Amino acid sequence: MTARAIETITIIGATTWGNTIGALLARKKMDVRVWVKSETRAREFNEAQKKLPADGTSSAIYYTSSMAASLDSADMVIFAVPAQSVRQTTRQFKGYIPRDAVVVNLAKGLEASSGKRMTEIISEEIPSTSRRNICVLSGPNLSQEINRGLPATSILAAYSGDTVKMAQKVFDSPNFTVFPSRDVVGVEICGALKNVISLGAGMVDGLGLGNNAKATLITFGWDEALKMGLKLGAKHSTFHSLAGLGDLITTSAGSLSRNHYVGREVASGRTLSEVKASMSNIAEGIDTTMAVHRLNHKLKLDLPVIELVYRILFLSFPPVELANRLSSGFIRK
Amino acid sequence: MTARAIETITIIGATTWGNTIGALLARKKMDVRVWVKSETRAREFNEAQKKLPADGTSSAIYYTSSMAASLDSADMVIFAVPAQSVRQTTRQFKGYIPRDAVVVNLAKGLEASSGKRMTEIISEEIPSTSRRNICVLSGPNLSQEINRGLPATSILAAYSGDTVKMAQKVFDSPNFTVFPSRDVVGVEICGALKNVISLGAGMVDGLGLGNNAKATLITFGWDEALKMGLKLGAKHSTFHSLAGLGDLITTSAGSLSRNHYVGREVASGRTLSEVKASMSNIAEGIDTTMAVHRLNHKLKLDLPVIELVYRILFLSFPPVELANRLSSGFIRK
Repeated sequence: MTARAIETITIIGATTWGNTIGALLARKKMDVRVWVKSETRAREFNEAQKKLPADGTSSAIYYTSSMAASLDSADMVIFAVPAQSVRQTTRQFKGYIPRDAVVVNLAKGLEASSGKRMTEIISEEIPSTSRRNICVLSGPNLSQEINRGLPATSILAAYSGDTVKMAQKVFDSPNFTVFPSRDVVGVEICGALKNVISLGAGMVDGLGLGNNAKATLITFGWDEALKMGLKLGAKHSTFHSLAGLGDLITTSAGSLSRNHYVGREVASGRTLSEVKASMSNIAEGIDTTMAVHRLNHKLKLDLPVIELVYRILFLSFPPVELANRLSSGFIRK
Repeated sequence: MTARAIETITIIGATTWGNTIGALLARKKMDVRVWVKSETRAREFNEAQKKLPADGTSSAIYYTSSMAASLDSADMVIFAVPAQSVRQTTRQFKGYIPRDAVVVNLAKGLEASSGKRMTEIISEEIPSTSRRNICVLSGPNLSQEINRGLPATSILAAYSGDTVKMAQKVFDSPNFTVFPSRDVVGVEICGALKNVISLGAGMVDGLGLGNNAKATLITFGWDEALKMGLKLGAKHSTFHSLAGLGDLITTSAGSLSRNHYVGREVASGRTLSEVKASMSNIAEGIDTTMAVHRLNHKLKLDLPVIELVYRILFLSFPPVELANRLSSGFIRK
C-alpha cells in the first residue's frame, strides 16, 4: 500500500452509527458515499439532503443502491452493518472493493456460528485485501451524543502502523479524537465482550440486586473477557483503554444499551424470543454470547459469569441462579 | 501474632459504614462494641437496640463512649472514621489498643496534608501495632444495599498472609463475600483515587457533556491512578479487581456518590465552599484530590485529568476548561 491520502470513502450500510460516521466525515469535506440496500431509500436520502441549507460546513453525501457506483475508486470502505451480517455483506461486495482500499469495520461482535472476529471474517472473505489494510474503529461512542457535537474519543486499530496513521487522520475531528492502536485482536475482543457483560449487568438490574452486585458482575465478567483476550493474543493495556474500560463503562454501567435492556427483560421472566420480537434494533450481545460460548469450546477457559449469561439466555436457566451465585461472590461453596 | 480466633471486635466511629459493618458482624454472633463520641448517643443507641425484637439472628452490639471500655481485650479494632480524622483518632486511641489486636481501616482516602495512605498513618501513630497486623477493607460497597441484604463483595488486604486469612474470615458472610489480597498499597490507592475520578465525572455531568465524554474522563483518570499506584508499588491486577474497577464503577459511573455531587455542583458554577456548606456528609474525594496533588509534587507524574480536577476545585479554574480539554481528547494541540 502506498502512503496516499484518503479522499473517497464508501460506507456500506445506512445504520445509525454508519450515518453518524458519514456526517462526521462530510463535515471534514471528504467525498462520502453511502450504499443503501433499497433504491427508494437512497433517493429519499439524497432528496432529504438537498433540502438542508447548504451552509458550506459539510460536503454532500451521495447515497446509492448500486454496489459498483458506491465503490468505484474508493480509497476507504467502511462496513457499518450488524456483526452477524458482516460475512454475507463482504461476500456480496468483494468483487467491487478496490484492491488497495483501506477497509474499516464498525460492528462490535463475534460471529455466532464460528466465534470469529469481524476482521478475521473480512480477511477470509476478501482475500484480495491485504490484512495490513484492514482496521477497526471502536470506543465509547453513543451516536446521538456525537450527532449533537458532544466530545467523544475512539480508537482506530490496524496491524500496520502506516494504515493506523492514515486511517486515524480520516476519522480524527474536533470533538472526536481518535487514538491509534496496533492491537486489533484486543480492540475487537473488548468491543464484543462488553456487550455480553452488559447483558449480565441488565440481568442483575432485572433481578433488583443493586449496584454492588452489578459491580461484582462487571468486574468478574471483565476479568473473564481479559482472560479470553490474552489467550487470543490481545494486549492487556487495551482492556483499560477507551476501547476497553471506556466502552465498558458507557455500555454496562448505565441502562441505555440494548443489551442491558435484553438482560433486564429476560431476568424479569420474559423469554429471549419475546424480547427480541419486541425490539426494532439488534442487541449485538445476544449472538456474541453464543459466539463466546462456542469459541470457549476450543479455548477451554473458566468463564463462570459469561457461561451463566449464556445459560440464562439460551438454555432457559432460571435467572435467580445469578442471584444465588452473586450471594457467594461467584465462589462455589 | 498467634493464629488465634477473633471474637471481640471494636468499631471506632458510628458512621454509616461503621454501623453497617457492625450489624454484619453482629449477625455473625460476634462480640461487637462500637465507640461513639458522645455518651448520650451511646445510651440512645443501646436503648434503641433493646427495643428491637430479640429474634436470635444477631448478637447485641454494645455502644460506649469510654475508650478504655470499648477496647478492653479487643481482638480486632476497626477504624470507621473519615480519612482526614484517622491520624487524630489513632493518636487518641493508641494507648488503649491491645498490642496484638488486628487493626482494620475502612476509610477511603489519602491525608490532605501529607498525601499518605491510611495504613501508613496508622503505622506511624500506633508503633506498638506491627505492620503485619494492619488491614484494609475496600470494595464496591454501598451501605444501604448491604443493610438490605443485597449481595456484595469486597477485598480484605494486609501485608501478612496470616492476617489476611484471619481477617477475611471475620468479614466474610452470606451475601458479603470477602476476597483476600496482599496488595495493601494498590487497594488503598484504588479506593482513594476513584473518589477523585468521581469528582471529575460529576464535573462532566455538570457541564452536560454526555456519557462518551464521561467515559473518556474515567478511562484517562483511571490510567493516571494506575500510573501513580505502580509508582508507589501497587500491583497492576488490583486496578481491575473489586477494589479497583468494581469500586470505580459504583462510584464514578452512576450519580449517587457524594463526590459526583460535588463535581456536578462545582461545574454548574457554585464554589467549593458553598457546596461543602450545603452537605451534611463528607465527600472524601475533595481532600484526597489535594493529597494526590501534593503527593505528585514528589512523584512528578504527568496526571492531566487529576491536575485539572484539582485546579477547578482549589484554584478557581473555569470548569469549561474541562470541556475544552475533552474536545481534543486531553491532547494539547
